[in-house]
Amino acid sequence: MDYAFSARMRALRPSAIREIMKNFNSPDRIMLAGGNPAAESFPLKEIRELSAEILTDKANEIFQYGVSEGYVPLREAVLARLSGQFSLPQGAGNELVITSGSQQAVDLTCRAFLDENDVVLCEDPSYMGALNIFRSYNARLVGVRGSSDGLDPEHLEELLKTEKRVKLLYVIPNFQNPSGVTTSLEKRKAIYALCKKYGIVLIEDNPYGELRFKGEAIPPIKSFDDEGLVVYCGSFSKIFSAGIRIGFSFASPEISRRIALGKQVADVHTNSYAQVLLHAFMQKHDLDAHVRGIQGLYRQKAALMLEGVRANLPECSFVEPEGGLFVWVRSPREDAFPFCVLAAKRNVAIVPGSAFAVNPDAPSPSFRLNFSTPSDEQMERGLKILGECMKEFLKS
Amino acid sequence: MDYAFSARMRALRPSAIREIMKNFNSPDRIMLAGGNPAAESFPLKEIRELSAEILTDKANEIFQYGVSEGYVPLREAVLARLSGQFSLPQGAGNELVITSGSQQAVDLTCRAFLDENDVVLCEDPSYMGALNIFRSYNARLVGVRGSSDGLDPEHLEELLKTEKRVKLLYVIPNFQNPSGVTTSLEKRKAIYALCKKYGIVLIEDNPYGELRFKGEAIPPIKSFDDEGLVVYCGSFSKIFSAGIRIGFSFASPEISRRIALGKQVADVHTNSYAQVLLHAFMQKHDLDAHVRGIQGLYRQKAALMLEGVRANLPECSFVEPEGGLFVWVRSPREDAFPFCVLAAKRNVAIVPGSAFAVNPDAPSPSFRLNFSTPSDEQMERGLKILGECMKEFLKS
Repeated sequence: MDYAFSARMRALRPSAIREIMKNFNSPDRIMLAGGNPAAESFPLKEIRELSAEILTDKANEIFQYGVSEGYVPLREAVLARLSGQFSLPQGAGNELVITSGSQQAVDLTCRAFLDENDVVLCEDPSYMGALNIFRSYNARLVGVRGSSDGLDPEHLEELLKTEKRVKLLYVIPNFQNPSGVTTSLEKRKAIYALCKKYGIVLIEDNPYGELRFKGEAIPPIKSFDDEGLVVYCGSFSKIFSAGIRIGFSFASPEISRRIALGKQVADVHTNSYAQVLLHAFMQKHDLDAHVRGIQGLYRQKAALMLEGVRANLPECSFVEPEGGLFVWVRSPREDAFPFCVLAAKRNVAIVPGSAFAVNPDAPSPSFRLNFSTPSDEQMERGLKILGECMKEFLKS
Repeated sequence: MDYAFSARMRALRPSAIREIMKNFNSPDRIMLAGGNPAAESFPLKEIRELSAEILTDKANEIFQYGVSEGYVPLREAVLARLSGQFSLPQGAGNELVITSGSQQAVDLTCRAFLDENDVVLCEDPSYMGALNIFRSYNARLVGVRGSSDGLDPEHLEELLKTEKRVKLLYVIPNFQNPSGVTTSLEKRKAIYALCKKYGIVLIEDNPYGELRFKGEAIPPIKSFDDEGLVVYCGSFSKIFSAGIRIGFSFASPEISRRIALGKQVADVHTNSYAQVLLHAFMQKHDLDAHVRGIQGLYRQKAALMLEGVRANLPECSFVEPEGGLFVWVRSPREDAFPFCVLAAKRNVAIVPGSAFAVNPDAPSPSFRLNFSTPSDEQMERGLKILGECMKEFLKS
């Protein structure tokens, strides 16, 4: 059958990770390619207790249809938590919509704003899941140059001046995926000022923000947002559980109304068990303390990985991340893809940089390593193998 | 702030139901407007037991990221159940993707197929949630005329001949929402033959199919599908729980691959607790027996409602539904909207027919009543009030 699929679908490609992972089923494989949180980060004991309680006390809330905006007590609890994390300009009314992960918050923002051939500006490289969202709306992606403290405001302004039909700017300001870069306060302010000057809506995606294990927290761009231009997307995937699929958008009432309408169209509402469970956890337990535990775990794991990178890949460079899940390593060669293939042959999975590029056909010198899921032993063994592969790669 | 929202969003309107329901908070209100399953239809006792088990035995499957296609044991169980319900033509390879309700299965099918200004053909009236999906892709909706045994194949062919860029046909063959109509076997075959002749993909949405409380089951259009043209969308909202958000698409491998890719983009995967829970229920309990219990409940409730409609609304006509959740009542006036407003003033919520129309500006003589959620007493009282409102309405 020769199907007339949409143009948007033809723009999507099978992910480079999946291609590399094909036939990657060996029992002694080492996965440094994932983006999963550590299994130890899920509060299982507490969840089991709470689950029995809510299935008795909140059965109708859990099993009947809910509202598209999300379970009201959870919305209130998340709002209260946000207000504890940062302050907003006077008079900035914002509303929260619970989504199926922050992935869906980004998707619904695009549904609200993007027409075909609109331009989305973003960091390059950036999170491939978001790039695929933009591609699936037939948007034109344009990458903004950046450095170790975030994207370059001069280049951003140049693009805002020259590109027609720019609708959205997409930024991950904390421990960016894949680069690990954190945007400085100065640059956050400059970026917001440009959005204001050119009337551009900014998607501030912050799934890793709470995973800071070093340095001081920097206020989100949303905290300067006195004109309602920022859609702040948050997630509980990395600080509570990924499989429960809970994230949220936090934006002006007008934008939130469109996001909620899109949510109703997309899947009616987010699954209620997870919403009620997360709310019960936030009521009865100390989520901040739980997050500090995860930060401690990742601090150790990141240190071990950086030590291994320094020892085994002395030819490579990297920006030391202050949080998140990843180390982004730059090889001395223009195209690190063959190195990733060598590693896969030795049963070590890593992600080639091209997977995160605005133009996935361009070669990338870099690759991404994940430290949250492998065991310490796997990490050490994996990095040793990567060191051997790098020697072979640089000889060829 | 003057936002540049997408054209697709401007095409969506706030739902007529929501407008009517505004300020509808009186404690003695009677809700005949909903589409919720009865609270008695959720197997709570079994869920509580299974929940404790799976949170111990399947914690990693539940709380870690899962695959976009869905939890493999659940996909296998649903496939096995489908094969017990109907047979497929020889050699028809089909695959299943678990979605966040059948709403999302329809949405992802549209993402796979629709470009702006493509035409979607559908029954008129039809499920407003699906009509809003099509509108949100900037598709042009064209209604096909129908009668008490389904849409008119002659009119369908006329439209297939004259309309340019028809991509999809959307049909709810069992106990259609809102009309309650069941498409006859003859018409199902004729509709499929036309899809084949004109190379059109058909979305067969079957959320109510298992809620048959009268007459014999008719094979789905999917059962004739020897060319992989039908995307069959199913749901567990009405036979297990709505709040868990589990549905699925069942289509050819090529279409399923696009749906899974769209799923990955939209929200990564469906929440895992609900997938693991539903699978455990299907393993350890008799879902068919549970469904028969729900059928019995709705048989009684539908009978009570039809009795009430005959007694209180003798001026109106209706097609007696053989299943589902709704009775679609036709008033003797061209526009029943003012009648719905009268009812709302008397604290009885019903849905005006225009809410389900392809052209929501056109008046509709009909309104939709729901019998699954109100208590028997509420139904009787509500219908009595509707009878009084109808007298007032017809006098005016």
